[in-house]
Amino acid sequence: MSQQVTIVGAGLVGALFAALLGKRGYQVHVYERRSDLRKTTISAGKSINMACSARGWKALDLVGVGDQVRKAAIAMKGRMIHGTDESLTFQPYGKADEAIYSISRTGLNQILIDHADQYENIHFHFDHKCVDIDLDTPSASFELPNKKVTHIKSDLIFGTDGAFSAVRSAMQKLKHFSFSQEYISHDYKELSIEAKAGTFQMEKHALHIWPRGSHMLIALPNPDGSFTCTLFLPYKGDHSFEKLNKEQKIQSFFKNKFPDALKLIPNLTTLFCKNPTSPLVIIKCFPWSHKGKVAILGDASHAIVPFYGQGMNAGFEDVTILDELLDKHGGDWPTILSAFETKRKTDADAISDLALKNFIEMRDLVGQAWFLKRKQIEHALYEAFPDQFIPQYSMVSFTHTPYSDAVRRGIQQDLILDRLANDEDILDIIASGKLKTYIETNNMIPK
Amino acid sequence: MSQQVTIVGAGLVGALFAALLGKRGYQVHVYERRSDLRKTTISAGKSINMACSARGWKALDLVGVGDQVRKAAIAMKGRMIHGTDESLTFQPYGKADEAIYSISRTGLNQILIDHADQYENIHFHFDHKCVDIDLDTPSASFELPNKKVTHIKSDLIFGTDGAFSAVRSAMQKLKHFSFSQEYISHDYKELSIEAKAGTFQMEKHALHIWPRGSHMLIALPNPDGSFTCTLFLPYKGDHSFEKLNKEQKIQSFFKNKFPDALKLIPNLTTLFCKNPTSPLVIIKCFPWSHKGKVAILGDASHAIVPFYGQGMNAGFEDVTILDELLDKHGGDWPTILSAFETKRKTDADAISDLALKNFIEMRDLVGQAWFLKRKQIEHALYEAFPDQFIPQYSMVSFTHTPYSDAVRRGIQQDLILDRLANDEDILDIIASGKLKTYIETNNMIPK
Repeated sequence: MSQQVTIVGAGLVGALFAALLGKRGYQVHVYERRSDLRKTTISAGKSINMACSARGWKALDLVGVGDQVRKAAIAMKGRMIHGTDESLTFQPYGKADEAIYSISRTGLNQILIDHADQYENIHFHFDHKCVDIDLDTPSASFELPNKKVTHIKSDLIFGTDGAFSAVRSAMQKLKHFSFSQEYISHDYKELSIEAKAGTFQMEKHALHIWPRGSHMLIALPNPDGSFTCTLFLPYKGDHSFEKLNKEQKIQSFFKNKFPDALKLIPNLTTLFCKNPTSPLVIIKCFPWSHKGKVAILGDASHAIVPFYGQGMNAGFEDVTILDELLDKHGGDWPTILSAFETKRKTDADAISDLALKNFIEMRDLVGQAWFLKRKQIEHALYEAFPDQFIPQYSMVSFTHTPYSDAVRRGIQQDLILDRLANDEDILDIIASGKLKTYIETNNMIPK
Repeated sequence: MSQQVTIVGAGLVGALFAALLGKRGYQVHVYERRSDLRKTTISAGKSINMACSARGWKALDLVGVGDQVRKAAIAMKGRMIHGTDESLTFQPYGKADEAIYSISRTGLNQILIDHADQYENIHFHFDHKCVDIDLDTPSASFELPNKKVTHIKSDLIFGTDGAFSAVRSAMQKLKHFSFSQEYISHDYKELSIEAKAGTFQMEKHALHIWPRGSHMLIALPNPDGSFTCTLFLPYKGDHSFEKLNKEQKIQSFFKNKFPDALKLIPNLTTLFCKNPTSPLVIIKCFPWSHKGKVAILGDASHAIVPFYGQGMNAGFEDVTILDELLDKHGGDWPTILSAFETKRKTDADAISDLALKNFIEMRDLVGQAWFLKRKQIEHALYEAFPDQFIPQYSMVSFTHTPYSDAVRRGIQQDLILDRLANDEDILDIIASGKLKTYIETNNMIPK
């Protein structure tokens, strides 16, 4: 008889993982606190658009849903930097055919649930709030809207229930369970730039950024011609959400900081006051599993900040890696889960730290001349040495290099970039097509 | 009418803080999960002896209980290092009159509760387990042994309920509350060396250490002639508590590692099997207060590892600092608590990191020749420049220098020590009494 698997949380990672286990023949029951999002109106203003990149696509293709998602996604080939003088500068993310893809969280979640729901051996249970986990049995207790509590025994329980995971809360009481939740100084608020006559009011194939040092605005395209915008601002202090408490202050703030965006958001104050202000939390913990029978993945074990566009991709890669371990170890879950957490923790920590570091890059550095020069050198090096010098952003977004390796190689490459950026003639060398010879003569990149 | 204060937790910090507030005229109610430890037999084997140093004494004297505690304490003037060859080396902690003081946790707690209990405006409620805190009211709910729950409103609520604080648990659900619990790789187990014919079997005025690299044994003296010993060992892996699961393995481990201690613990295997193995957790969080009405202190806000002997001292110093802020701001608790957490968080983080670092010093470095040489140089510098060069251990243990300043100065002084330790003639220079001139000639210590 096939094993009974309980998945707590039917979000992106939960639905994807359900599909994977269903495909492999497990009896899968997915319990979700919220109502079925295919049947209800989604509360607006609570979602940053997702940016799907290589790691995400690999996992989506693995369960056979990649092509369907591609139809709902929009390629973003680079960053479009908006200056306070309303100037525009485009910075490509990688080579000409490389892009990250904007996709709505809700739309993607619907596709994944629909896909998993086709399997006879996958069962979704909505409006089931996890209130307790008995880790040793293992069993889970869910509260229904009528307040009745139902108890489920299972061979395996997986927590894919996000940054405030109930499954993790149970594990947190165990001896030797290390855990941290760290709020960064910035909150976020969703805004929106509507389509005009059914079309985009800004460049469609870009992730738009208004970098302003201590804060920033970003915008990602949607298929209907609109952009989902997100404002990141400290929650207290000068220039904070706390201070933007009057219509006039909000208008004047946008007029000073994001003049071109203000023109495209005529209903700014209404949106600003209606949409919630939400915090950004970083979750780290260990171990991720208990006695080979209970485990957490995705945001439940490693929630990160959104500034590298890797939160979902990292969660999806968890599923890819578990799939590889299932191939290797068959149904030996204690071995699989132990190998998974041991290997994966280092990579989860690496992308967590990178994502936080990238916040500074996005909100500040991308607007500075020396940074652009550096990007130009990096791009030229990548073209000249496509196998030896891969920019860190490309490694993270367009390859499956383990995150921790990307960090390590990034540090080495930064030393080379530092050296070249200080070279006064470097842009001339690049322009004259002599970079490759120059680097080889000076023996600057190890073969 | 005086303000109603609720203190959750009648441990060391809770009882001391109650005494302080009682002295200042507040109506204080202290709720404690456990039974009155003055009336019950204490479960053995769960307590590392306390080492009281300057910060601890200052707070004890502040509430007028210092002299009473001094009578129950034993001065430890230095470390006695036990080699595997049963050799003994004594390293003084500071100057001749400087010592840290061994005191039993239970004994000290009894004294503090007795002292606070003398105030008519301080009321202790034992067997009251905090099950909920309403942070905004504020109010607290306590479960009694008969499972009935009682609710208490209060002007102020303080959580002094230790590393697994219920008050902090309530705060943890707040937006922007950052929190971490980190278990270190080592667990601990209490053992005991009994008195022989009413007297000490080892040097009384020392903290005994058996440093063995990856693990260590320590022993602190008690007034009855016994020593409370603590074994620190990884909880899994080679040489771990997990592996010491048979009588014969325990005996052979001690015979190899702690031969002299084994001779003094004839009932080793009985004690080893009877006493619990307990984990060591580091707690960090922020903020420490909510709306000027609820706050946490001591281990509840900054539990640290015991390797610098500063856990209790740091908790007591919280009370001293709150007393100073009460002098400064009167009864303006929102201002007091905000000033407290802003200033104190940096110092709490500093001693937390120092304590973890000191574990390596205690279990490994103290047994090495180069370390002893360094200590000798440090001691000589302190004698030559008593105001300009104060060893970090002395700053932490024998002064009230903020912990973060001690860290900063320690880093500067380490550079000087590094330089001198590499000087081949340094011990000769010290022996000939020429250190002061040598340092001044080379301008090595800023005036």
